[in-house]
Amino acid sequence: MAEPFDWGLLEPAGAVGVPAGDDRVLAAMVAVEEALVGAWDELDGSAAQPGYAPLGFDAAAIDRARLVAGAREAGVPVIALVEQLREQAGAHAGRVHRGATSQDIVDSALVLVSRESLSRARSALAAAAAELATRAIRSRATPLLARTLTQQAEPTTLGAALASWLDAVVSALEVLDRLEYPVQLGGAVGTGAAFARLAARADAPQTLRAGVAARLGLSDPGRAWHTDRGPVLAIADAAARVAAVAGRVGRDLGLAARDGVLLPATGGGSSAMPHKQNPVDAVLLTANSLRAPGLLATVHTAALSSDARPAGEWHAEWQAWRELLRIAIESAEVLAHAIPDLVVVERAGSTVNADAADLASAGAVVDAAVARYRAHAEPDREAH
Amino acid sequence: MAEPFDWGLLEPAGAVGVPAGDDRVLAAMVAVEEALVGAWDELDGSAAQPGYAPLGFDAAAIDRARLVAGAREAGVPVIALVEQLREQAGAHAGRVHRGATSQDIVDSALVLVSRESLSRARSALAAAAAELATRAIRSRATPLLARTLTQQAEPTTLGAALASWLDAVVSALEVLDRLEYPVQLGGAVGTGAAFARLAARADAPQTLRAGVAARLGLSDPGRAWHTDRGPVLAIADAAARVAAVAGRVGRDLGLAARDGVLLPATGGGSSAMPHKQNPVDAVLLTANSLRAPGLLATVHTAALSSDARPAGEWHAEWQAWRELLRIAIESAEVLAHAIPDLVVVERAGSTVNADAADLASAGAVVDAAVARYRAHAEPDREAH
Amino acid sequence: MAEPFDWGLLEPAGAVGVPAGDDRVLAAMVAVEEALVGAWDELDGSAAQPGYAPLGFDAAAIDRARLVAGAREAGVPVIALVEQLREQAGAHAGRVHRGATSQDIVDSALVLVSRESLSRARSALAAAAAELATRAIRSRATPLLARTLTQQAEPTTLGAALASWLDAVVSALEVLDRLEYPVQLGGAVGTGAAFARLAARADAPQTLRAGVAARLGLSDPGRAWHTDRGPVLAIADAAARVAAVAGRVGRDLGLAARDGVLLPATGGGSSAMPHKQNPVDAVLLTANSLRAPGLLATVHTAALSSDARPAGEWHAEWQAWRELLRIAIESAEVLAHAIPDLVVVERAGSTVNADAADLASAGAVVDAAVARYRAHAEPDREAH
Amino acid sequence: MAEPFDWGLLEPAGAVGVPAGDDRVLAAMVAVEEALVGAWDELDGSAAQPGYAPLGFDAAAIDRARLVAGAREAGVPVIALVEQLREQAGAHAGRVHRGATSQDIVDSALVLVSRESLSRARSALAAAAAELATRAIRSRATPLLARTLTQQAEPTTLGAALASWLDAVVSALEVLDRLEYPVQLGGAVGTGAAFARLAARADAPQTLRAGVAARLGLSDPGRAWHTDRGPVLAIADAAARVAAVAGRVGRDLGLAARDGVLLPATGGGSSAMPHKQNPVDAVLLTANSLRAPGLLATVHTAALSSDARPAGEWHAEWQAWRELLRIAIESAEVLAHAIPDLVVVERAGSTVNADAADLASAGAVVDAAVARYRAHAEPDREAH
Repeated sequence: MAEPFDWGLLEPAGAVGVPAGDDRVLAAMVAVEEALVGAWDELDGSAAQPGYAPLGFDAAAIDRARLVAGAREAGVPVIALVEQLREQAGAHAGRVHRGATSQDIVDSALVLVSRESLSRARSALAAAAAELATRAIRSRATPLLARTLTQQAEPTTLGAALASWLDAVVSALEVLDRLEYPVQLGGAVGTGAAFARLAARADAPQTLRAGVAARLGLSDPGRAWHTDRGPVLAIADAAARVAAVAGRVGRDLGLAARDGVLLPATGGGSSAMPHKQNPVDAVLLTANSLRAPGLLATVHTAALSSDARPAGEWHAEWQAWRELLRIAIESAEVLAHAIPDLVVVERAGSTVNADAADLASAGAVVDAAVARYRAHAEPDREAH
Repeated sequence: MAEPFDWGLLEPAGAVGVPAGDDRVLAAMVAVEEALVGAWDELDGSAAQPGYAPLGFDAAAIDRARLVAGAREAGVPVIALVEQLREQAGAHAGRVHRGATSQDIVDSALVLVSRESLSRARSALAAAAAELATRAIRSRATPLLARTLTQQAEPTTLGAALASWLDAVVSALEVLDRLEYPVQLGGAVGTGAAFARLAARADAPQTLRAGVAARLGLSDPGRAWHTDRGPVLAIADAAARVAAVAGRVGRDLGLAARDGVLLPATGGGSSAMPHKQNPVDAVLLTANSLRAPGLLATVHTAALSSDARPAGEWHAEWQAWRELLRIAIESAEVLAHAIPDLVVVERAGSTVNADAADLASAGAVVDAAVARYRAHAEPDREAH
Repeated sequence: MAEPFDWGLLEPAGAVGVPAGDDRVLAAMVAVEEALVGAWDELDGSAAQPGYAPLGFDAAAIDRARLVAGAREAGVPVIALVEQLREQAGAHAGRVHRGATSQDIVDSALVLVSRESLSRARSALAAAAAELATRAIRSRATPLLARTLTQQAEPTTLGAALASWLDAVVSALEVLDRLEYPVQLGGAVGTGAAFARLAARADAPQTLRAGVAARLGLSDPGRAWHTDRGPVLAIADAAARVAAVAGRVGRDLGLAARDGVLLPATGGGSSAMPHKQNPVDAVLLTANSLRAPGLLATVHTAALSSDARPAGEWHAEWQAWRELLRIAIESAEVLAHAIPDLVVVERAGSTVNADAADLASAGAVVDAAVARYRAHAEPDREAH
Repeated sequence: MAEPFDWGLLEPAGAVGVPAGDDRVLAAMVAVEEALVGAWDELDGSAAQPGYAPLGFDAAAIDRARLVAGAREAGVPVIALVEQLREQAGAHAGRVHRGATSQDIVDSALVLVSRESLSRARSALAAAAAELATRAIRSRATPLLARTLTQQAEPTTLGAALASWLDAVVSALEVLDRLEYPVQLGGAVGTGAAFARLAARADAPQTLRAGVAARLGLSDPGRAWHTDRGPVLAIADAAARVAAVAGRVGRDLGLAARDGVLLPATGGGSSAMPHKQNPVDAVLLTANSLRAPGLLATVHTAALSSDARPAGEWHAEWQAWRELLRIAIESAEVLAHAIPDLVVVERAGSTVNADAADLASAGAVVDAAVARYRAHAEPDREAH
């Protein structure tokens, strides 16, 4: 029981995925329960009393084996978690999980983990974008024979190729920046009636939801979304977008390495052919982008909810959601490594007959992409 | 050749899908080519000449069999289309498709069809939302025993259940309203160099792109997105969202019909049991939402582009993209039919013991959802 | 209504897909209804009467618009079809669709179309395999520098590369040859009770099922599989396998064309660059194999049936199932075109330093693949 | 680094998945390397020498953090593994991984894990089938009103419903029993040339492959399948079939619990409503079957291989493949728990008017399913 399943053997870029690992999700669940206690304390005035001590939990002390056993029994880990948190709370056990349901805890925790994961992915993407802008400008006029459908097509420039990657990365940043991370708090059937009943106040559902949101740094959506998985779909779509954008660059990097145009400075080796320099970053980016669509399909399938909690769809969502976050982190961080690592190969004798129109048009592509990047990054630089 | 494959036999709600059918896509391709001719005419000043006659094409006169044969040969239908458009243009053949590439035409045409399709879906969703708001208010205090994980849980109200559907529909409307429909015009390798060369003007790529966008009512993205499929992913995600939202309502409608709580006024029959009243709308909504995730996965897989045009990914995108549009239209229109068609079944003896907290909390859910709906619909009513 | 949606515009290899088009599916449905009438005639002895005339239907005379309208109303096209068949039957209307349910007709028809489609795909794969065997032997000793992870790796031979494609094609043939095509006949809830009741014979369900199977050339599975979609999963998996095998060859063909090692004799043109020779077959094969996984996921999702007929899952299956058949036909036929069309490019100065071990080992790969192919093809040649 | 990611928090039935966890995969990789050393020893005659000691490795002693770091660097964990194994081998380091490539090790290890995992799933399915057969016979004549499209349809029996589950489980057993588990051993580019070179024997590739297969209890496929992922597709399809079959029973169990017809003896609780008895097994089965299709799509997408090793597709396969195995184990074992746990609810006053034809036809369904089960199980009982 609770024996660790996975520690990264089959996820080559996996170590970076720890922010969405079980320990982090558990810590987020504990944080949600803590925030709920705090919101209750504020609602009932106890937080304003002299000598008030907020209730704190020790996530590291949770017995994971007991949690997993309880999860098998109940279908969710929350019941077994609440039991242990109540034990930690001792005399204050009654203050734990008041009026909440399992889904409040799991959904809010996964949104919390999503915010952290995608924020980390965002930083890496922003670094990749900065480097892409620098390099696109630098190679603004370096002729390159573009290919379409595998065949040599018309001249462009290396700068324009980098600019097209930059454009995609900036689009992904825009998607991430538009995302919302709403708290979930609706109680047993989404109305929060138990909150109102326990508080003997009609506005308790709204007040507690706002309080928990504020404590966790999440947004208050003004509603429960137990069975409307829109917020999850938006997060999953955004994570898949990160994987797609980085994966397309990865595919291009792989092909550039094949053609001998761009090579990684620090390629990986081979167990059979020690002399080889494999484009490992390109491989990992491509692999991740091939994995994301199936996981996204699962999250969309799981959105076919029902009743006030469906019998399977919700449970089907967790792993795919979390895996998409990991993939987004990994892909963004590998991309941020891959771009500075690129070496442009000078090849004697291979001249590209780019004319003035080719160069001017490609240059305009670079200028537009860099301008767009800067317009997006400037306020960013101030805000972050 | 060009023998019609599908006329709706296996798409029960299919007749409504015609807006994304081959004829409509072909007409959109022709419209893009026409807009390009018009933009050129403006660029080179001929449109300002006295006696200027814009070049018009007859989409209905296109030989579809020849188109399909050409598509098999070239992998895209555009080459065979341009041939025929040039024949239609006669002496003006040289003005057709100047500097453009196949992808400019197919991508812009599918964006055009997307705008039309999702606009149609939006209208239907808005109608469903209006009806949901009316009904949620009407049944704001009608007690209902909510279920979770199939089992009877806590009391809520029918109004709160309808409000949770309304919330999801409003979220889908928000997603649709944020969508952009950008034109594609980048020429052979995305830089538009041929436009600059043919026009002998460095700004021709930008000017023509803006001109085509304006003529088609699409936005000018300021760049080519040949290999950055972000705009397609956004459209596909939105279409899948429509299917998911409508499908979840469909699943609930099916379960409500099972429980005998809500029934369709106009259920469908059975070939084996003529007396049965099947919840056909619920079935179609559910089916569509089960189909969308796989298609969405395909569009995301196809986003793994490469070079200045990939060898297969782009082609893999078309059918899945188009099918998602159809599904979005169908689901929205079936939903708009299903909601007004609902009959609430009064059942003697089945009393739900909802207390004041249950009713007040459920009422607040209705109020919040209706207020959110109205805030979203108001500007809408003015703008549309 | 019944306006044709699709005639191949967006399926470049689409014309070959007609075997799984709506007209063909409709004809198969009619054939199933005819077979059921025939089986009844045999069961009740009327077929043995002097002057017996079997009841025949005219599929071409079916009003397609009425069918589609009926399908929207009932969720399945069968009710509207049976109405029209009964009209065709006139005084014999009572003999039509006796004891059957919609699913009997649709499932059996789609199995029939599957058998035809995959038989056509099989013929094309067998032709491709024969050509691959011939060419593998011919280039058994032609050195080739293999690549792994895009980079040059170790020497192999062109023959070994072709042999690895041959192995995959033979594996796909084995999968197709193991497939079963079972009839569906279970009546309203899968027990066939109505058959027994109408015939006043306890063995009527079994006898009619065997009779319909024999008339259609399908196997008699000894049971109804209304809600056990195993037979559909097996067919869909096999069709996806064909797409995968052909797609992998397509990907290799695209890369070989990129590297200038193998080129198509009849490549396609470009609307922007008329001089280009695009590897169109490679593109179509790759595109199809990228489309199949999402459709397969849909068929597997739809297998999550329930009750004696689920409220949406069954309906979600039809289009994805049928599309997989089309893709299998197209991919197999494009592959059968692509292999003979290949031209090996001789490149002066590019020598591969293959040693004796390289050549012997690569030769053994060719020999094993050809032997395996022949062992599989021999009985085949006799049996077919 | 090598910090455990997942220990089961989000996989409620996860503890059973350990057979496909990282530790087990690592042990399998080590076993493959050991088998290769043994096969070499036999080939070169050293195994027949007096005092011969086979080389053994200690999988538990492997430094996992170093492995993960190496995997990030090289894209595969094998290089870092071989380093450590060579350290363990000391003076015998040269005997480790001779002539092999990373893919030989990873592929063979995952096939080994597949065999173990699906064998475990098979045992559980067989137990479920035995119980289903017993219960189907017992309730052969218990009337039940079947539902189609959520609505009450025609009478059947509980026995026939159980028989339809049994049929699906037996079909899944048949699929598992037809599976092959082939070893992978092809060296750098699939020809095994390095084996021939190092052994100075032309038959070394074949001899070593047969030797490794025999040592691991895998089949010798007579070829390398580095880039022909047929064997993986077959395994993945089979695992997905197990999930689909169990998931459909799960969906039915959920609906039966909703209708109050069948209830779990040991349902799970609720964090909000302690009195509830949730059908947890049904929920887990359904969730798993909703997760499998997306993973299957990934494995099929990853089958689009290229060259002698593709740049991303192969890497994309690992996690999805392994996750499908886990899901298969979990679903089979949960099913084996769920069936004996079922309680048939007797409901006063609810009479189903089944006539003689209904009962006889339903009884025949039971008889056929049980006979089919027994025919499949008998040889099984002898062989296992």
